[in-house]
Amino acid sequence: MERHFVQELDALKKRLIKMGSFAEQGIADAITSLLERRVDLAEHTIARDPQINDLEVEIDDAVVDLLALQQPVAADLRFIVAALKINTAVERIGDHAVNIAESARQYALGPDIRIHPEIPRMAEIAKGMLRNVIDGFIHSDPGLCRKVLTGDDEIDDLNRKVFRDLASMIRADPASLEQALELMRVSRNLERVADLATNIAEDVIFMAEAHVVKHHREEKG
Amino acid sequence: MERHFVQELDALKKRLIKMGSFAEQGIADAITSLLERRVDLAEHTIARDPQINDLEVEIDDAVVDLLALQQPVAADLRFIVAALKINTAVERIGDHAVNIAESARQYALGPDIRIHPEIPRMAEIAKGMLRNVIDGFIHSDPGLCRKVLTGDDEIDDLNRKVFRDLASMIRADPASLEQALELMRVSRNLERVADLATNIAEDVIFMAEAHVVKHHREEKG
Repeated sequence: MERHFVQELDALKKRLIKMGSFAEQGIADAITSLLERRVDLAEHTIARDPQINDLEVEIDDAVVDLLALQQPVAADLRFIVAALKINTAVERIGDHAVNIAESARQYALGPDIRIHPEIPRMAEIAKGMLRNVIDGFIHSDPGLCRKVLTGDDEIDDLNRKVFRDLASMIRADPASLEQALELMRVSRNLERVADLATNIAEDVIFMAEAHVVKHHREEKG
Repeated sequence: MERHFVQELDALKKRLIKMGSFAEQGIADAITSLLERRVDLAEHTIARDPQINDLEVEIDDAVVDLLALQQPVAADLRFIVAALKINTAVERIGDHAVNIAESARQYALGPDIRIHPEIPRMAEIAKGMLRNVIDGFIHSDPGLCRKVLTGDDEIDDLNRKVFRDLASMIRADPASLEQALELMRVSRNLERVADLATNIAEDVIFMAEAHVVKHHREEKG
């Protein structure tokens, strides 16, 4: 029983790592398809999302089975509850990658208006945050997760700058409206990925320290 | 033990009903503050959000205690896992109410550009969806939740119409840009509330029927 439990937990961790890396790849590919105006890569990113959705359902089922059959307590119970919450958050990050890919596909059909360097920068920060929170979860390392909490502020600042710059661009050249709205959507979705990574960081810290750090920040959108 | 468990479950349901009605009130007040250009009501809506956040933490704690102390199985376990997921979703709906209130506050400072009737209509549908999914959860009524799934399509259509109309307005009158962007943000946040209500509906149907209906729709934004 004990050994079986350890194996099940291990399988759960592996699935979450896989899901996290799918989500990270989704963000990376969506941004590449935006920057390189690659409709094929955007379509590919959208087509791959069901893999993440399937993993979400598998992880939810595994969690319910673990709770029912093993009746874990204390640290194991907190780990499993955190896994359930992280699962939901990573699946949403996958959805944001799809949103970005949809905007990239749309953007590729219009004129080549300037993409602010802040957008790929936001994507790099968001991917790093996601990687760190998944690592932090797997290794129960709240220190790694605390670092993530600062990345969120940086992304918020970049997002505001992108919005201001794009609004100025629309004013100067109203014909850029559709393209600028797509880039605003990309920026906002990256900002939401950072929010979700922050939520995961809070869940990991809760798990590791049984201490709620929630609601030091709210969801923006 | 058995009786204690029933009482604890009952307390959990009451907290979720309370949280749902706070979130619904938040959406209602945020939209009223937008339509009536009431900065005071917008500020009040923003100031009240911590009540929902506190309830989220309370519910998470209650769920962990229930799992640890009662070790529920079968239908009770599915109910509690659903409560955990619904808790996260309702808290996010509260965040969207805050986002709408922020836009309402900003909008009230600018010129009085036309607010499309689709926006209050979307708010009505979203509030109704939220009410139905919470009722559906409390009474384990998947039928009530299935009805909600159609509301989401209607909101998506209204959201697209609002975006098209606002884009035309910006083209016709570039000075309306800031105000139009705030109204787009309101529309998008209402659409996200409908998505989250849809997620809750799926969780309730899963709970009631142990059957996954997830991913018939994806998160948009």
